[in-house]
Amino acid sequence: MKIYQQQQIIAAMDLHIAAQRITEGFIAFSQGRVQVPPVQNFLFAAANGDCCIKSAWIEGSENFVVKISSGFYDNPGKGLASNDGLMLVLSAQTGQPQALLQDAGWLTCIRTALAGQIVAKALAPSRVTAIGIIGTGVQARMQLEQLMAVTDCRQVCVWGRQPAALEAYRDFAHALGFQVSTTQDARQVANQCNLIITTTPSREALLDSEWIRPGTHITAVGADSNGKQELDPRLVARADRVVVDSVQQCSQYGEVSHALKQGLLQSEQLLELGQLLQSPELGRQSDRQITLVDLTGVAVQDAQIATYAMQACLAASAAA
Amino acid sequence: MKIYQQQQIIAAMDLHIAAQRITEGFIAFSQGRVQVPPVQNFLFAAANGDCCIKSAWIEGSENFVVKISSGFYDNPGKGLASNDGLMLVLSAQTGQPQALLQDAGWLTCIRTALAGQIVAKALAPSRVTAIGIIGTGVQARMQLEQLMAVTDCRQVCVWGRQPAALEAYRDFAHALGFQVSTTQDARQVANQCNLIITTTPSREALLDSEWIRPGTHITAVGADSNGKQELDPRLVARADRVVVDSVQQCSQYGEVSHALKQGLLQSEQLLELGQLLQSPELGRQSDRQITLVDLTGVAVQDAQIATYAMQACLAASAAA
Repeated sequence: MKIYQQQQIIAAMDLHIAAQRITEGFIAFSQGRVQVPPVQNFLFAAANGDCCIKSAWIEGSENFVVKISSGFYDNPGKGLASNDGLMLVLSAQTGQPQALLQDAGWLTCIRTALAGQIVAKALAPSRVTAIGIIGTGVQARMQLEQLMAVTDCRQVCVWGRQPAALEAYRDFAHALGFQVSTTQDARQVANQCNLIITTTPSREALLDSEWIRPGTHITAVGADSNGKQELDPRLVARADRVVVDSVQQCSQYGEVSHALKQGLLQSEQLLELGQLLQSPELGRQSDRQITLVDLTGVAVQDAQIATYAMQACLAASAAA
Repeated sequence: MKIYQQQQIIAAMDLHIAAQRITEGFIAFSQGRVQVPPVQNFLFAAANGDCCIKSAWIEGSENFVVKISSGFYDNPGKGLASNDGLMLVLSAQTGQPQALLQDAGWLTCIRTALAGQIVAKALAPSRVTAIGIIGTGVQARMQLEQLMAVTDCRQVCVWGRQPAALEAYRDFAHALGFQVSTTQDARQVANQCNLIITTTPSREALLDSEWIRPGTHITAVGADSNGKQELDPRLVARADRVVVDSVQQCSQYGEVSHALKQGLLQSEQLLELGQLLQSPELGRQSDRQITLVDLTGVAVQDAQIATYAMQACLAASAAA
């Protein structure tokens, strides 16, 4: 079994190829060609931590993947990152472990950011006036970085609660070449931006429906477990097109779940991302429509990015 | 993260300590103190393989464990073992991976054999006249080895389908110090032995109820997934004491499941192994009773043996 560390993985990967593989993964998932066993969850209440184990195999492919990812929210006080993780790539022909990717959670972050890129490419309005980012953390940064490949827009408005975090984000985005405005009032993001990404672990709506202008696209990546919420359910119901990475997961705990429970939305209105990627004509019909994508994260993304990361590391080793 | 290979792990472990840890694990499990998420299963039909991912954490303990174990039954034709596996030990305080145990399935085999030892110590009749082994594979061997610590009996009768496999088992058991008889008629095992272990992947009953003599103890370890069966359901119903490693698992797919489905047994009659180990007075009442234990394998065994294996390897490294 090969063992690769985070820095090797980052150096070896071509993110355009990674995005292509993830696109293929979403399509396979929506075609029912992926074995995705139930997610395993642990709760470590005393340590303020949790861990989930996600696994997937695209039927017919050479490898399957098991991912362990954890969040221990008191870790920073111990000098450790809150999030950690690793992925194992195994042979679907012999069961033998092929590679251990000690990415410390980076692959999960980047596959989530690439899903945001894929979605923006498919659904963003034809002219992005400004990008709105809700949140200032790692995912807020990676989403902006990955959007640069699919839009020429270099205006960003970022919302956060802490002035220091907003200032740090300003420096980060400025270094990427953006004109940056920061705010503690999410209404301003809605007023200025027509491509908005929400990236927080919020447990209550941050964006009200009435703030959002026609023509806006919104990608929500924060709500990935029970109780989390970033969007007003009326906004979810109001969108002209509601796309989910997984009908099953999003109905359970995504943004969509809140609108479904309140009877504001019917599950028949949901379009799965893989279906959209296979049939782009199902997407945005005009620059007046509001489109909305709810991403909870599906294990097929892990399977695709881990398999590609292993291949890229192998190729880099061979070339060295 | 420390990485240990199978040979290091085998060399470092004291199996008496391992058995004690597994005993403690069964007790914790039956007390409801173990987080055991649903098992993840893959089926690789074209490659004649399967894989399961089992995870467990004893609440309050320092580590949790994720195990990946696979069976690819065409592997021998490729010069590979059918079974493979690894275990990961992670911190329940910070989420950080602590150790990767590349045991290639050995820890699963030995924890299963130690469960057989624990069960025999608790329930075998006071005088074991002869040990009966159904099957000739790896588990058939490891069970016999581990029984030597809890019985002085050195008579064994082994059943198998293939003369060559029986001869190989005879050599193996003889080298351990046993007087060995072999048979292709399972009735002979029942006639001669009062401590019987069934270790096959059979999908139909191998032991008839009427063959079994009063005073016999039977441990069934083969039926670990849907469709597998080694015992006549009437034998399960006839036993004076029926013990299961997990009420939930055994009711789904263990030997017990067949008797439950046929209405020959009620789930109220089942005693969980952890309860028995905590309250030994619930066990065998006389040398005329038939006792029966159905082992499907629970993730708490993996958590306990992997954590101990890591500690033993660490101690061995420190001493070296």
